[in-house]
Amino acid sequence: MLFTSTASRVLLKHSFQKATTTATTTRCLSSTPASIQNAVASLKGQHFMSIDQLSKDELNGLLDLSHHYKAQYDSGSTDQPLKGDSVSMIFQKRSTRTRVSTETGMNKLGGHALFLGPSDIQLGVNESMKDTALVLSRFNSLILARVFAHSDVTELAEHSTVPVINALSDMHHPLQTLADIMAMQQHFGADQLEGKTVSWVGDGNNVLHDLMLGSAILGMNVQIATPTGYEPDATILAKTQELANASGSSVMTTTVADEGVAGAHAIFTDTWVSMGQEEEAAKRLAEFEGYQVNNALMAKADPNAVFLHCLPRHPEEVHDEVFYGPQSIVFPEAENRMWTVMAVMAAQLGKV
Amino acid sequence: MLFTSTASRVLLKHSFQKATTTATTTRCLSSTPASIQNAVASLKGQHFMSIDQLSKDELNGLLDLSHHYKAQYDSGSTDQPLKGDSVSMIFQKRSTRTRVSTETGMNKLGGHALFLGPSDIQLGVNESMKDTALVLSRFNSLILARVFAHSDVTELAEHSTVPVINALSDMHHPLQTLADIMAMQQHFGADQLEGKTVSWVGDGNNVLHDLMLGSAILGMNVQIATPTGYEPDATILAKTQELANASGSSVMTTTVADEGVAGAHAIFTDTWVSMGQEEEAAKRLAEFEGYQVNNALMAKADPNAVFLHCLPRHPEEVHDEVFYGPQSIVFPEAENRMWTVMAVMAAQLGKV
Amino acid sequence: MLFTSTASRVLLKHSFQKATTTATTTRCLSSTPASIQNAVASLKGQHFMSIDQLSKDELNGLLDLSHHYKAQYDSGSTDQPLKGDSVSMIFQKRSTRTRVSTETGMNKLGGHALFLGPSDIQLGVNESMKDTALVLSRFNSLILARVFAHSDVTELAEHSTVPVINALSDMHHPLQTLADIMAMQQHFGADQLEGKTVSWVGDGNNVLHDLMLGSAILGMNVQIATPTGYEPDATILAKTQELANASGSSVMTTTVADEGVAGAHAIFTDTWVSMGQEEEAAKRLAEFEGYQVNNALMAKADPNAVFLHCLPRHPEEVHDEVFYGPQSIVFPEAENRMWTVMAVMAAQLGKV
Repeated sequence: MLFTSTASRVLLKHSFQKATTTATTTRCLSSTPASIQNAVASLKGQHFMSIDQLSKDELNGLLDLSHHYKAQYDSGSTDQPLKGDSVSMIFQKRSTRTRVSTETGMNKLGGHALFLGPSDIQLGVNESMKDTALVLSRFNSLILARVFAHSDVTELAEHSTVPVINALSDMHHPLQTLADIMAMQQHFGADQLEGKTVSWVGDGNNVLHDLMLGSAILGMNVQIATPTGYEPDATILAKTQELANASGSSVMTTTVADEGVAGAHAIFTDTWVSMGQEEEAAKRLAEFEGYQVNNALMAKADPNAVFLHCLPRHPEEVHDEVFYGPQSIVFPEAENRMWTVMAVMAAQLGKV
Repeated sequence: MLFTSTASRVLLKHSFQKATTTATTTRCLSSTPASIQNAVASLKGQHFMSIDQLSKDELNGLLDLSHHYKAQYDSGSTDQPLKGDSVSMIFQKRSTRTRVSTETGMNKLGGHALFLGPSDIQLGVNESMKDTALVLSRFNSLILARVFAHSDVTELAEHSTVPVINALSDMHHPLQTLADIMAMQQHFGADQLEGKTVSWVGDGNNVLHDLMLGSAILGMNVQIATPTGYEPDATILAKTQELANASGSSVMTTTVADEGVAGAHAIFTDTWVSMGQEEEAAKRLAEFEGYQVNNALMAKADPNAVFLHCLPRHPEEVHDEVFYGPQSIVFPEAENRMWTVMAVMAAQLGKV
Repeated sequence: MLFTSTASRVLLKHSFQKATTTATTTRCLSSTPASIQNAVASLKGQHFMSIDQLSKDELNGLLDLSHHYKAQYDSGSTDQPLKGDSVSMIFQKRSTRTRVSTETGMNKLGGHALFLGPSDIQLGVNESMKDTALVLSRFNSLILARVFAHSDVTELAEHSTVPVINALSDMHHPLQTLADIMAMQQHFGADQLEGKTVSWVGDGNNVLHDLMLGSAILGMNVQIATPTGYEPDATILAKTQELANASGSSVMTTTVADEGVAGAHAIFTDTWVSMGQEEEAAKRLAEFEGYQVNNALMAKADPNAVFLHCLPRHPEEVHDEVFYGPQSIVFPEAENRMWTVMAVMAAQLGKV
């Protein structure tokens, strides 16, 4: 929509453009393969709102760049392509993973992340969204925001003159999807995902939205099991079907957990009670009965299936025997939050 | 007063003196023009409490250095003259601009800014002001504080053995004035401010205090329109008149908004209800009737006049037609908060 | 116990091991004397829970490294041996010194410290201790935690795959002891502590625990004066006696303040009312009557005795005449919190 149009890909900030022509960038050109640089070149100056704004090549480029960074920094590189750059991280709701992965990843790249928590900045309360976006754009190279309403992060992006990253809204969580796919690539092989089946068992929420969109882009089949009333957004489901048609994969929904995991290669779930839903916790727990991912449910999936979860995890949605078991790849998945946000930020700044 | 005396300009911290003689400093000498280095040399080791502690040469030197940093870092420099240095930023009240501009600017210079919010440190509550100053001086190269009572920041400075920066007190806001003047220089030309007229329309507050002092130092005429009861501090007004006499400019006060802006080249206003004054908001809104800066009021000023505001902005004191209009330079003004605090910190550390 | 066993000294994280073989480390080898590198080599990959997990050689090695860092960075070094490394600092309770010293020290070493305050992360509330440890280990090179219950920090260490630092628990405060001993070394000479007498006057708390253990390791005599009911932990007292037997020093306890300081070379006290004990403040103040460190009490000690305090300080436990007097070394002691935590982190990462 707004952010997938060609128009939104135009660079807006003058100084930001200039900075990419300096020696720093040149130095980095030598270490990142040209194929990756080319694949993500179109992301320079763009916002990152949802996974479906990416072409298949761009998505693969970001994933390749993430693997590249992990290899590079795990082997002791102290290269700092984002030296002098900064990102303001705005959090309307608390976060550990997003904050720590971004702050640490930005530091690895040589830049600086500013943590603006709910008590530091109240979006739209003390200052309008528009003015906040215009002011932060003057100081920072990037703005990352975790918001309640998706319209809040798109409003920030509309006014910002630097790239904005959606770090979770009520509709989308594209950073999580990048980490999820990277984890599946680490397990199955980077070029082995096409034709594999991704299964979601639980609440049809924001995390699912980008996972289903991203999986369909890459030609993975999608199976979604949710209780009645907890289905994913209908528009996003239609968009996923469209992407699956294009890539030759399939999309299936069911209200039977067993059907949802049948033959799947990757089983995902998430909390049944998200932040802000504590009041209706009892009702939700009852309606999700039978949706816990445990050994019995995993037995319906492919024998080599893996389990993933965006964390934090609660025992009701996944049993210890799975969460801490041999099929779980939840901690590498969490680590990937760092490598993937590093790739997104570097691509948006054109300093890959 | 205390901080403009020769005695207060003496360097106090041993290690801080030594650090300025190293290779880091030498490396920077090549990039900053000697004329700027000479103009701000006297600020090394000094506190920065209010704009009137600066001579005209020092003030111009800080402004020149700010322009120099903007040019240097906008063109992609990753020079880090403050590598290894740090500033503790103490906030008794919330801030977006001051915190983000200082934290980002310090990072550009290669140093590190620590954000100590109201929930992290309570000045004088858990530990005396004196002990806080003595302890932070042991860890950090600089201390920046946003306080309610001006006496709090001067007490910190009295005991600190490293330079202290006043980042807003109930009496002074010198960092804002540097950004304001820099913005006027960007618009009119750096050497074109003498003889121009600065107009303040609204509450005679801390932001006005340093603006009028700084304008008078540079030979700009000052016109101040406030409702009765909202006049600036009498002592500061007298000091401004004294500075204006020395520089050959004039100072005028009025309670009629139209008179305040007549012929002016730069129109400033600020919120009518500052933090801590929410209880008397209704009374204030009534008493400031007629003081909104709108197109009708701007029409009384010089045709080429610009509009400035320290932000955050509220619609009552300035209409959208002005705030987002062609005469407004509020967002470059905000950006200048970064370049100017960088200049102040580098000058205080003698690492220009 | 748990953390002094050989097993707990095994390195757990793959990437962390690899990183130590890079050029960054090599560059640093030239600046730190080999004798120090050898003394702390065994600390690589270890947790740091209490001072008695250190051998005398390891303790002296950390102290030597602390002095080395102070000399190096005070003379203007901008060496960054921990470039690309990071530490998550988890605070269950507020802190100024620990937070600022670690954040600033980590920056001096070229790494990055993330401040996770009580409103950012609630250990064990939103996410289990185990998952928190496993996740942060994926992002950060180190985890530092200030907790209420000592079992919380040992639980973090049990699950973490990177080294964990205890930055104050209800039982131990080893970082403070390093700073305390370093301050005594600065005053008396680094090799002049053996045979000197350390005196504690006040509450037999966590700060005392590590001070008595560390003093006994180094062959210092320990004299402890507490009111009845405020004695140090019996197990730690027994351990201290054991260490004193091995090093040829002595341990004495008394309920008479005068006896506690008799002939001592270093007098320590701490607040009588720690965080969380505010309710019983009046009772405590009454029971500590006669325990204030003032000139009269200092007169019972060795004429060249020094006074130390971990801060924040309150007038009831120490009079201004002592706290700000010529025998006080409390501010150098505070500064040492930075040099010593730098030594601990670099040693744990094997990048000395």
